Amino acid sequence: MIYSKIFYLLLVMGRQSPGYSVTVRLEIPNVVGNFARIAQVIASADGDIRDIQIVKVEKDKVIRDITINTKGEEHEKEIVRRLKKLGDIKVLRVVDRTFQIHEGGKISIQNKVSIINYEDLARVYTPGVARICKHLKEHPEDAYRYTIKGHTVAVITDGSAVLGLGNLGPIPSLPVMEGKCMLFKELANIDAFPLAIGTQIIETFVETVKYISPVFGGINLEDISAPRCFEIEKRLRQELDIPVVHDDQHGTAIVVLAGLINVERILKKRLKDLKIVISGAGASGIATAKLLLRHGAENIILCDTYGTIYRGRTENMNPYKSEIAELTNPENIKGSLSSAIKGADIFIGLSGPNILSLDDLLSMNKDRVVFALANPDPEIDPTLAMPHVRILATGRSDYPNQINNALAFPGLFKGLLEAKAKKIDEDIFLESAKALAHVIKDEELNEEYIIPSVFDRRVVSAISKAIIEYIRKKPDLRKL
Amino acid sequence: MIYSKIFYLLLVMGRQSPGYSVTVRLEIPNVVGNFARIAQVIASADGDIRDIQIVKVEKDKVIRDITINTKGEEHEKEIVRRLKKLGDIKVLRVVDRTFQIHEGGKISIQNKVSIINYEDLARVYTPGVARICKHLKEHPEDAYRYTIKGHTVAVITDGSAVLGLGNLGPIPSLPVMEGKCMLFKELANIDAFPLAIGTQIIETFVETVKYISPVFGGINLEDISAPRCFEIEKRLRQELDIPVVHDDQHGTAIVVLAGLINVERILKKRLKDLKIVISGAGASGIATAKLLLRHGAENIILCDTYGTIYRGRTENMNPYKSEIAELTNPENIKGSLSSAIKGADIFIGLSGPNILSLDDLLSMNKDRVVFALANPDPEIDPTLAMPHVRILATGRSDYPNQINNALAFPGLFKGLLEAKAKKIDEDIFLESAKALAHVIKDEELNEEYIIPSVFDRRVVSAISKAIIEYIRKKPDLRKL
Repeated sequence: MIYSKIFYLLLVMGRQSPGYSVTVRLEIPNVVGNFARIAQVIASADGDIRDIQIVKVEKDKVIRDITINTKGEEHEKEIVRRLKKLGDIKVLRVVDRTFQIHEGGKISIQNKVSIINYEDLARVYTPGVARICKHLKEHPEDAYRYTIKGHTVAVITDGSAVLGLGNLGPIPSLPVMEGKCMLFKELANIDAFPLAIGTQIIETFVETVKYISPVFGGINLEDISAPRCFEIEKRLRQELDIPVVHDDQHGTAIVVLAGLINVERILKKRLKDLKIVISGAGASGIATAKLLLRHGAENIILCDTYGTIYRGRTENMNPYKSEIAELTNPENIKGSLSSAIKGADIFIGLSGPNILSLDDLLSMNKDRVVFALANPDPEIDPTLAMPHVRILATGRSDYPNQINNALAFPGLFKGLLEAKAKKIDEDIFLESAKALAHVIKDEELNEEYIIPSVFDRRVVSAISKAIIEYIRKKPDLRKL
Repeated sequence: MIYSKIFYLLLVMGRQSPGYSVTVRLEIPNVVGNFARIAQVIASADGDIRDIQIVKVEKDKVIRDITINTKGEEHEKEIVRRLKKLGDIKVLRVVDRTFQIHEGGKISIQNKVSIINYEDLARVYTPGVARICKHLKEHPEDAYRYTIKGHTVAVITDGSAVLGLGNLGPIPSLPVMEGKCMLFKELANIDAFPLAIGTQIIETFVETVKYISPVFGGINLEDISAPRCFEIEKRLRQELDIPVVHDDQHGTAIVVLAGLINVERILKKRLKDLKIVISGAGASGIATAKLLLRHGAENIILCDTYGTIYRGRTENMNPYKSEIAELTNPENIKGSLSSAIKGADIFIGLSGPNILSLDDLLSMNKDRVVFALANPDPEIDPTLAMPHVRILATGRSDYPNQINNALAFPGLFKGLLEAKAKKIDEDIFLESAKALAHVIKDEELNEEYIIPSVFDRRVVSAISKAIIEYIRKKPDLRKL
């Protein structure tokens, strides 16, 4: 336990991240060895030089921009302090690259055609546009054809559970929502617009989303706290005629299941024969458990901060935990995560840092499968776990097998929009997971490659194709 | 009266519009004189050829796309019917250009930076984005700097008064809202997003707009029926910390006043010495009357379908008409438009087609000024009115002096956003009108040029600059 805490601290302290990246502009006298001095100062301060650009060369000096990945804001400042001590070398400017990239926001609107004269204006706007309005009055379903509805999604939050940062409220959540919209565009060419709703009252939130829904072809809910998110999603699905998906639940569930389908392929076993422990009974934990059950898993135990979820537990419960208690934990095991994990085959962490000790891990069956997905700091230090597991997945991009929601939602909504889906069902998530898993061909599949890269162009088309085919067979899910 | 009706019919029947434009693809045998035959058929059917493109040339035939402006959908069909009768010439395809330009909607989302690897992702999304979220939690006003808020406007309707088409509801209003967003982008580089709200209950509409407002720097209300629009705007201004402008009211008022300021410059008279009759007591009529009063006008009479608005009138009134009755019609004239217009200097039509007869017009003072702004069919046929007026303005682009809201809202919101305005006051509209009027220099000004073109690049910067300067002097209108 003490060991794992030390490892964990090393892990957190010891990593430079592009999220803490700084560009320093230096004026350097033209003396041989000066650049080596600079590089040495940065390296000895534990900075990671990522890029060096020449800005200007003069007779006796050169101006360079040096981009350094650091471990955090304090570390950034420390490196700059040390550079400033270099006497003859001047620090002209320090730019935090992350803040810089968010400057002015990250998305904008683009016109599909230019308006350069009155003839253009007469077609895109009055009087020509009146013809399209009248047409849509008679044929509202043609909104998918003559408006942005057919390729536009709302990314909506109430700011109640922003990343792992908690209840920040609407304004501070916007950079995340914009980032999500960027991913929709970059990965699936879907136009997504961010909305941060200024209320956390469920009733009011649901009404608001309902009333702004006409222009959208789908609703992606994001960063809404559990258990509120379950009721919000359920009510919106009842009230709207477009698909509603809470990504923290189903995006995660899809990608986890896709990873586990490939675990099945590697181990040549079925989930129904494996014991699975899930740490976390929030949005993603509960949704993942349900999707695994749907895929055939029979022995799942969920744990929250208070231990296992079991039938008859009365403390720290809610209706969603009670429901999942009925469906999981067949032996009704009570107690801590440590008691649940004994003899388990698969651990799925959707909780927080450092939840799983090495002793817990070692009490699992052989061929251990560990998905330690808490971000940025997993349930167990990956370096610590790696020697003892058959398959390891994390939420991070600096280890193999990154379980990232961005593998699911772009293809999911692409499929739903192209199929003009009006409703969603759980089997759509199942189909998405299967399609995602099978992007990796038999000959590619191995313990360190159970899930494709977010940037693998096959992902979006595989998922959307599977969804379109599925919906084709389910007319009740479609418009018209 | 009969004459003007006939003229009016000719006007409506006799005009080809780019809003009814058709591209016909023809396969034409290579025989001298064939193209002349085609052109003759189109001309004799009253079609207006706008463009001819060669698609493909073969040994014995040529394929051409011919774009024709027509008078309406029936006229489009008639022209195609006649072309099909041409025997040896084949009609391969007929494309309605207006429907074509709306295909897929008219706007899309664009990412300001690309995401091509995990390092990009770590900056625009997790984990880097968390730093911006935390910063905004401490400094919410920096949303103008680190999110899209500083350059993003919502274009919001409830679909209750779409163009002149009436209460079409949310979905059919979308093509207009998208068109408006295009104008924001094209003319002022403002990012505008269209929202059609699925309720026409004032209370619910106001709540909905309030809750979705955090991401926006301003709200442009559009096509909301009177008198509901007055209460909606008023309540939103009370509840929101960003500026709210109902464009049908204030956009129109600004551009009309700008035109009248230039009328003052030409006539070398002040509005306060002129008698003004406004036809229409809806959103734009009432807002225009108020702005003219603010500019100094003292003798304004409003008329609606039931005659003049006067103190003591009880039929077909509402609180907004009663309020304006207190402020206008100093002699409390009762009766029809015809009785009000006698001896008037200025007529402003914000109502419907063919409201003003030639007799009415002739009963005005000399140096008649007529703004016949109903669209597409003005209150009086411009061709009929022209010989008898000193200055004529319409809402149309095919006569001089087009009074078009697109002259106001782009610069207005540009100024409000750049000033980080949190509130709006009536003087902002006054400043906007003055700035717009004075885009036209003394030496340029004449009876046929009292208002600049929508495509005049001086317009947006003149208005926004005036607003920024005004708000600089009014700290209570600004954030912080």
